[in-house]
Amino acid sequence: MQIIKYPSPGTWKQLLQRPAIDKTSLLEQVKIVMDEVKLNGDAAVIKFTQQFDGVVLSGMQVTEDEIAEAVALVSDELKKAIRQAAANVTLFHEKQVPGIELIETMIGVQCWRKSIGIEKVGLYIPGGTAPLFSTILMLGIPARIAGCKEIVLCSPPNKQGKLHPAIIYAAQLVGITKICKIGGVQAIAAMAYGTATVPQVSKIFGPGNQYVTTAKQLVQQEGIAIDMPAGPSEVCVLADETANASFVAADLLSQAEHGVDSQVLLVTTNELLVTQVQEELQKQLALLPRKKIAEKALENSMAIVVKNLEDGIALVNEYAAEHLMIACKNEDVIGEKITNAGSVFLGNYSPESAGDYASGTNHTLPTNGYAKAYSGVSVDSFVRKVTYQKLSKQGLQNIGHTVVLMAEAEGLDGHANAVRVRNELGVRS
Amino acid sequence: MQIIKYPSPGTWKQLLQRPAIDKTSLLEQVKIVMDEVKLNGDAAVIKFTQQFDGVVLSGMQVTEDEIAEAVALVSDELKKAIRQAAANVTLFHEKQVPGIELIETMIGVQCWRKSIGIEKVGLYIPGGTAPLFSTILMLGIPARIAGCKEIVLCSPPNKQGKLHPAIIYAAQLVGITKICKIGGVQAIAAMAYGTATVPQVSKIFGPGNQYVTTAKQLVQQEGIAIDMPAGPSEVCVLADETANASFVAADLLSQAEHGVDSQVLLVTTNELLVTQVQEELQKQLALLPRKKIAEKALENSMAIVVKNLEDGIALVNEYAAEHLMIACKNEDVIGEKITNAGSVFLGNYSPESAGDYASGTNHTLPTNGYAKAYSGVSVDSFVRKVTYQKLSKQGLQNIGHTVVLMAEAEGLDGHANAVRVRNELGVRS
Repeated sequence: MQIIKYPSPGTWKQLLQRPAIDKTSLLEQVKIVMDEVKLNGDAAVIKFTQQFDGVVLSGMQVTEDEIAEAVALVSDELKKAIRQAAANVTLFHEKQVPGIELIETMIGVQCWRKSIGIEKVGLYIPGGTAPLFSTILMLGIPARIAGCKEIVLCSPPNKQGKLHPAIIYAAQLVGITKICKIGGVQAIAAMAYGTATVPQVSKIFGPGNQYVTTAKQLVQQEGIAIDMPAGPSEVCVLADETANASFVAADLLSQAEHGVDSQVLLVTTNELLVTQVQEELQKQLALLPRKKIAEKALENSMAIVVKNLEDGIALVNEYAAEHLMIACKNEDVIGEKITNAGSVFLGNYSPESAGDYASGTNHTLPTNGYAKAYSGVSVDSFVRKVTYQKLSKQGLQNIGHTVVLMAEAEGLDGHANAVRVRNELGVRS
Repeated sequence: MQIIKYPSPGTWKQLLQRPAIDKTSLLEQVKIVMDEVKLNGDAAVIKFTQQFDGVVLSGMQVTEDEIAEAVALVSDELKKAIRQAAANVTLFHEKQVPGIELIETMIGVQCWRKSIGIEKVGLYIPGGTAPLFSTILMLGIPARIAGCKEIVLCSPPNKQGKLHPAIIYAAQLVGITKICKIGGVQAIAAMAYGTATVPQVSKIFGPGNQYVTTAKQLVQQEGIAIDMPAGPSEVCVLADETANASFVAADLLSQAEHGVDSQVLLVTTNELLVTQVQEELQKQLALLPRKKIAEKALENSMAIVVKNLEDGIALVNEYAAEHLMIACKNEDVIGEKITNAGSVFLGNYSPESAGDYASGTNHTLPTNGYAKAYSGVSVDSFVRKVTYQKLSKQGLQNIGHTVVLMAEAEGLDGHANAVRVRNELGVRS
C-alpha cells in the first residue's frame, strides 16, 4: 500500500484517477461471438459453450428436476442464511415502489406518473471460483418487486454442465422465470437478440469479466439498456482517531480479495492509524485463503493522510467510491456531507460485507467514479416511470393560450393547431 | 400514409420496426472534433465554431449584459406563457423528490436511501430553425429541483454570434448557472472533457442531430452518463369510433412537422376513421407552414386497422411509442393496460402539444421503442440515490452469522473476517 501524506487538493484528481482499462483489443473478438449468436441462435450458443466452457450441453435451460436436485444439495444452514438475506433485501427494496400521485397543475389538467416493470429483463451471474448467489438476490428481488414479467438468468456451466446448487437455490427462491446454463459473451448476445431457448430482453444486469462488460457495452449501443458501466470493485475507508485498526484492515482485505484489480483506499487524519493498519494487514493476510489476490490488489492501493476531516470529506467526494466506510466519531454528521458514493457504511460496526450480503441495501453499485452520475441498482432500475396526462375540455382551454404562444415562438405551427382545432370545435368533454 | 388492415400479430414486430440508422460513417468525423477539444480546449471550440457555425466568438459564455438584452427582447406575452409552463413543470416535478425513510431490516440494522443531485450537469439545446426554449424548462427545472450545483447550457450561436432571446430568457428563468454559445460535437466534447470556459460535467442531457447524438454515445462509453439513447420523435394514436378525425389529423401533423424522419402511427378499430383522417390531413396540411417536412414524414407513416381494441392495445404496447394518445371511449381503462410508452395522453382533449409545452409532464422521452426499457427525463435523472446503512454492535451480532455463512459459501473468507473481527472484539458501540 502506497502511503501519501497531506497531498494538496490540486493534486487529488490525478492521485485518485483509476487505472485506465483499454477494451478496444477485446471488441473484435467479442463482436465475432455476438454476430454469430445473432445469426445462428442456440446453435451458436452451444458451439461457444463447448469452445469456452469445455462442455457440450444437451439442454441450456435448467429443468425442474435439476432445480429440485440443487435445492436438496444446499445445506439447511446456508438456505436459512440466504432466506434471511432475501428477507432483508425484500424489506428494503419494497419501500422503493412509489405510489401514484395525481397532480392537477391547472384546473382540468391532471398529470401523474406510474411505475411499470420492464417486461423482460436478463440477469448475468459470472461463474469462476466464487458462485455469486448473493448477486441473484440483489438483482432478482428488485426485478420481482418491480413487476417484471420475464426474468431470465444466465450463468456459465461447469465442466459437468451444471450450475452451483446455491445459484439455483437463490434463483428459484427469488422467482427467476428461466435459468439458463450459458456464460460469457454468448449469454449477453442470447439475451440481447433472443434465441429459441433464451427470450430477448430489454435490459441486462449483472457483473462480469472484461468480455462480458464489453458485450454489454456493445448491446447498449444497439438500444438494449444495461444496469451501469462496469469497473473493478473498490472500497474507501475514511477514518479518524476512533477507528479500529483491526476492523479497518479486515475491511480493506474484504475488498482486496475480490480481484487483483480491486482498489482499496484508506483516508485518515491519523498518521498512526496507517502504521497500525499496515501491521494488521500483515497479520490478517497471512491467514487469508485468497492471500495472493489480496496482496496484488493492495499493491495498487493507497493510504492517504489528510490534515483534517474537512479535507478528508472533500477527498472522498472527489474519489466517489463504490463503497464508502466512515469510521469516525461523528459518522452521522460526516455522512450528511457525502455527495458522491455508491453506498455509505456508517460507524465501526457497519462493515462493507454486511451490505454485500444481508443488510438489505443493494450491492450492485457504481464503481470507477461513476457514482458521480449513477446510482446503484434498485427497484427504479427495473421500472419505467410512465407519465400520464388527462385534460378536460376546460383544462385545454385554460392551458391552450400558453401552448399556442410557445409553439408559435418555436416555429411549430402544427403544435399550435392541435390546440386550435379543439378549442374551436368541441365534440365531447 | 400507408394503410395496413388487420395485420396478424405474428407480423407486428416486423411491421413496427423503426428504420435503422447507421451512424458508423459519422463516428470518425465526430471523433476528430472530440479529440481536438479534449486536447486543446477552448481554442479548439473556437476553431470548430468558426468552421461549423461560421462565426468567430470573442467570448463563449453569455454575459450578464447579453442576458439583460435578451430578456428585454422577449415579449411580455411570451414571457408570461413561459412562466406559466415553468410553473406547471415545477409543480409536477417537485413531487418527484422522495423523502428519506429509515428502514430497520433487523434490530440494529438501519438502512435508508438519500437522493443527492448530480453536482455538475450539462444541457444541450440545438439551434437551427426552431429555438427549443421549451426543452430548457424540461431539463433545467428538474436539474434545479434535484439540487444540481452547476447546470451548464450549450447552444449554437447564430451568424451574429448570438443565441435566440427566448433561449436566454428561459435559461435565466430556470436558474442555469452558465450559458455558453457552443453547438454541435464541440459542445458535447467541451462538457465531457471540460475547457477553461466550460466545466466538466458528469451527465449530459438534451436532443441533437446525428452528430450530437453520436458524440453523446461516444462520451457515454467513456463513463459520462447521458439522458437516454436518441431517435426520431414519434406519436402513436390509438382511436376508436369516438375519436375526432380533425383532432387526430392535427395531432399526427404536430408530430410530422418535427422532422422528415418523424414517425406517426394511427391504430384504430374504425376503418372509416382512416379515410376521414386522410381527408383532414390534406386540408390541414395545405395551411401548414412546415408542410414540406410533414408531408415527407407522413410518407413513412402508417394507419393500421385492427379488429378490436384488445389487438390495438397489444399492438401499441409492442410499438412502445414515445407519445401515445388514447382517443377512445374508455380511455382510462385502456390507459391502465398500457405497458410500454414514454408518455400517455388520455382522451380527446389531451393533445401531445399540451405535454410538449405546458401540462407539467416532461417532454424528453424515450423514442425508437426504447420506452420498453427507459423512462423519460424526471428529477430521478438528475440525482443519485445513495444507500446508507448503520449497524449497532447488536445489529452486527444479529446479522453476523448470515453474512459469515454466505461469504464462506461464496469462497470469500475476507468478507467473513470483517464480521468476525468485530464480533470477537468490541471497541465502542
